[in-house]
Amino acid sequence: MGFARPLAELIAQFERLPGVGPKSAQRLAFHVLRMPLEDVRRFSHALTVARESLGVCSICQNIAEGETCEICRDGRRDPHLICVVSEARDIMAMERIAEYKGVYHVLHGLLNPLNGVGPEQLRIRELLARMSGGVQEVILATNPTVEGDATALYLAKLIKPLDIRVTRLAHGMPIGGELDYADTATLLSALEYRREL
Amino acid sequence: MGFARPLAELIAQFERLPGVGPKSAQRLAFHVLRMPLEDVRRFSHALTVARESLGVCSICQNIAEGETCEICRDGRRDPHLICVVSEARDIMAMERIAEYKGVYHVLHGLLNPLNGVGPEQLRIRELLARMSGGVQEVILATNPTVEGDATALYLAKLIKPLDIRVTRLAHGMPIGGELDYADTATLLSALEYRREL
Repeated sequence: MGFARPLAELIAQFERLPGVGPKSAQRLAFHVLRMPLEDVRRFSHALTVARESLGVCSICQNIAEGETCEICRDGRRDPHLICVVSEARDIMAMERIAEYKGVYHVLHGLLNPLNGVGPEQLRIRELLARMSGGVQEVILATNPTVEGDATALYLAKLIKPLDIRVTRLAHGMPIGGELDYADTATLLSALEYRREL
Repeated sequence: MGFARPLAELIAQFERLPGVGPKSAQRLAFHVLRMPLEDVRRFSHALTVARESLGVCSICQNIAEGETCEICRDGRRDPHLICVVSEARDIMAMERIAEYKGVYHVLHGLLNPLNGVGPEQLRIRELLARMSGGVQEVILATNPTVEGDATALYLAKLIKPLDIRVTRLAHGMPIGGELDYADTATLLSALEYRREL
């Protein structure tokens, strides 16, 4: 005899999430049964609202609630300075440094030919389309990993001929580390010492 | 600038789950944004359906979709043999042994006076109410921990005077385990309850 059907279904749903094994899924599902009904409804609602209302910004490809994201809409940001990151969550890491006043571009991945990720799979065409708008500098802030470095070099080769300054975050960050996990001081130093490519 | 509001809300909701820290919550929320819309709706639905449709069985206190659980409704189960467990998920462990044909009783916790869990906080009154129905044996299958043992002893003292057989799951070496790795308490118990061959 198994779990009651709605419980089994909830466990199955939790198990589909990344990093959630059968035991964790059971634990989470039983936790939900003990949560106040109002809290469960809020969680349930947050899931569909987030998925239904969010898309990508037509300019920078960041997660956005409307046509463009909050950062691109913000008149106080400098649209001539673009920081290129791999994932939308990397923007949060950069935003912790109040010093950065430019905008972003999210690639949604890194070049990885062995896994079938070529330039066509990334938002590179959208990045190049922005280059005609008087951009003065492109900061390549992809992770300092093999894929991140390769992607940065690839982009530098495309953008430098357009007479736009191309820089890379300084290697104040630990090699092999992830931008998403960097502390503010390390990131600030990496921004400060960015180098010409 | 933070995450778009619906995304921040979803991250906050994931963070409220047990064992989910800020980084995991972000990872899960971003995963949801990449899930097919239909899958997100199914997950969202499973949450509220499970919470709204499930309660506890009026007989054994197991998670149940209706007034009573599937096991209590099953005419092939022996209602005169009751296995007492701490949590509803412990029933799943017992059900993996096809040999067990009795029913269950879920205490929803273990005695733990230091944390304010006394007999009144557990479903003990409901267990005693079942004792008048011709019960022949009560198997105490609470975990072999301080709290589990104390709870089992407490229940044994209440039930044995009613002329009902009270047993406890045997303690000893796990099948396939190595003597070398067994903890002292387990070994001691295995020695104490050694059987004639």
